[in-house]
Amino acid sequence: MKQLNILEPQEARLRFDNLRRQLEAEKADAALITDNANIYYLTGRVFDGYIYVALNGPEIYFVRRPIDLEGDGVVAIRKPEDMAQSIGLNMPQRLGMELDVTTWSVAERLKKAFEGAETINFSPAMRRLRSAKTPAEIEKIRQSGIRQERVYRRIPHLYREGMTDLELQVEIERISRLEGCLGQFRISGDSMELYMGNILVGENADTPTPYDFAMGGEGLDPSLPVGCNGTVIRPGDTVMVDVNGNYTGYMTDMTRTFIADHTSDLAAKAHQCSIEICHRMQTDARPGAEARSLYATAEAMAREAGLERYFMGHRQKAGFVGHGVGIEINEMPVIAPRSRDIIAPGNVIAFEPKFVIPGAGAVGIENTYCVGADRTECLTNAPEQFITLLA
Amino acid sequence: MKQLNILEPQEARLRFDNLRRQLEAEKADAALITDNANIYYLTGRVFDGYIYVALNGPEIYFVRRPIDLEGDGVVAIRKPEDMAQSIGLNMPQRLGMELDVTTWSVAERLKKAFEGAETINFSPAMRRLRSAKTPAEIEKIRQSGIRQERVYRRIPHLYREGMTDLELQVEIERISRLEGCLGQFRISGDSMELYMGNILVGENADTPTPYDFAMGGEGLDPSLPVGCNGTVIRPGDTVMVDVNGNYTGYMTDMTRTFIADHTSDLAAKAHQCSIEICHRMQTDARPGAEARSLYATAEAMAREAGLERYFMGHRQKAGFVGHGVGIEINEMPVIAPRSRDIIAPGNVIAFEPKFVIPGAGAVGIENTYCVGADRTECLTNAPEQFITLLA
Repeated sequence: MKQLNILEPQEARLRFDNLRRQLEAEKADAALITDNANIYYLTGRVFDGYIYVALNGPEIYFVRRPIDLEGDGVVAIRKPEDMAQSIGLNMPQRLGMELDVTTWSVAERLKKAFEGAETINFSPAMRRLRSAKTPAEIEKIRQSGIRQERVYRRIPHLYREGMTDLELQVEIERISRLEGCLGQFRISGDSMELYMGNILVGENADTPTPYDFAMGGEGLDPSLPVGCNGTVIRPGDTVMVDVNGNYTGYMTDMTRTFIADHTSDLAAKAHQCSIEICHRMQTDARPGAEARSLYATAEAMAREAGLERYFMGHRQKAGFVGHGVGIEINEMPVIAPRSRDIIAPGNVIAFEPKFVIPGAGAVGIENTYCVGADRTECLTNAPEQFITLLA
Repeated sequence: MKQLNILEPQEARLRFDNLRRQLEAEKADAALITDNANIYYLTGRVFDGYIYVALNGPEIYFVRRPIDLEGDGVVAIRKPEDMAQSIGLNMPQRLGMELDVTTWSVAERLKKAFEGAETINFSPAMRRLRSAKTPAEIEKIRQSGIRQERVYRRIPHLYREGMTDLELQVEIERISRLEGCLGQFRISGDSMELYMGNILVGENADTPTPYDFAMGGEGLDPSLPVGCNGTVIRPGDTVMVDVNGNYTGYMTDMTRTFIADHTSDLAAKAHQCSIEICHRMQTDARPGAEARSLYATAEAMAREAGLERYFMGHRQKAGFVGHGVGIEINEMPVIAPRSRDIIAPGNVIAFEPKFVIPGAGAVGIENTYCVGADRTECLTNAPEQFITLLA
């Protein structure tokens, strides 16, 4: 048998205490946690089941699978209705549920299992909670950044003349996996899909995508229309690499732009502008700053450089310039024009001010920053300038 | 601009006609299709938006992104509430919605956008519809099978002495991707997670997993507890390979067992039993057969061979021996003890009667079969016996 909760006891306590503070703020007397990402957040592992967190009372871990978990509060169940027996007379009056990430059918069944309780949507509270990372979480993200950087430094050596974007991506996938990349790319919600990462070469970067990523690409097949499309890498093309940085269960998000030989002056200018925006974001992303102001600053810098029409896409534009990152790739805060998020200590934010230059491709960088009380630190430290691919 | 619906017009007509038959059966006058897998099924591509299918009236494609799609019935929208205007006075009275795969919050918002309409859960109807593949769909699955077989035949040549399970998996991932594997592994629902596939070596096969897959494995990290765990492949171990067969948007599911040098007699016996069960399933999986009877037959064959305690897992057992496969890996029919599914022409079913033998590892095979009117055909034709890894 294995201990269910594998976080350090003090760390687990901290996370549950913070969750209970959200319960108080929502005037709820319990939460039912159902989502893999949040189960992982609270226990350090994924299991099939639910975590019941009462405002006043110990946590209960209801586990369907695996069958080899034990520890305080672990209760084996077969179906959601089995939970009522353990909770008994202490049924909640107002129950927080993850309604933004649970399917309608499952949510309704869970509501019935807690008949009599008023239910509220606790997803926003969980997003707020997870947006302020603990030091232990930041350390996991830092470790991913170190390993992702090691992979990015090797990318130029993977290139061979005549390679397609897919062929280069496959070699990057390979060294990432050998470095310990888990491959999995956790995304909140069910409409975004991606395999391992996005490599955009030349004009393919200007193909609109259905997904809510910063950049597009045609993809290899209309069933997964994003990313590389089999384009041969040619002199003059830019090669934007934005691949999976999940080495520890917590991700970093890093983009670098490589060039095969040379590129246009406009592309070079836009790339430099991206670097400058990132550095400015690092300076400005301080506790208390408004996410929307950060977006406005980034956009203004692109406009002042005369690059507005290429900023965050050319034919189709993304609606944000940065996003929280951690267990999932789309966490809070969101750096977008109408965002109401306020930057706070412990936020880990990927800034990706990118440009699509017709005739050249996508340029710019993306870094993951951690907002500390004293300074905002970059966790993705590969070289930022254009990197020439070696043949 | 690109045509939105890229299916052959006759094929699109066939699928929409079949969907309308489900509407009639459910006494609904319209369905709102929201799920990527079903949008792909009806159009041949994924887009961000909705398909509104009225029983009497043309399809309407409501598209948020990408911005470059056109064609009959394509309407650009920014938010769900924009749909009402296009539907106008023909608002449905009884609307089918995909409540098993849409989050509670999104479903409630969509319901409000169709205020006044009674809503019903149309997910079971869509699952039924998609379980009977059209000839064009079967051809896509067949093509995936051919390419997956090509990859599996090369696996012995990837092996080097002293390799870990991860190192072998990475090389299989690489040749799969170069063969055109899309990597993406579409799974209905949001609780199952996997990266690219599952390679189980030796004792690791006996580690229970939280996920609803046939086999387990510890995984590389508790954030994704399934599959390979860094075990070195040693003489006597079995190496079960069950990797992604999505080459066309439609998947095949195939498992083969490799051995490093030798294995135990018990493992060899169980492997032979798996092959025999598969062949029996191919014979028995005929239109009209009960899924639960197929399961019972498979289980009985394992029992008669004295292998019951190893069947479908040892420490933790899976609850099924087969499943439908197509756009997603967990389609209908489900071959399980309490399944009510009846085998029908056009079903594509993966049978995976597997065993976990303590001290050796996982053994057995998995094949994907297509149920035709005349015969049930195997679409995954790599050699079925143990395959020796070459060093």
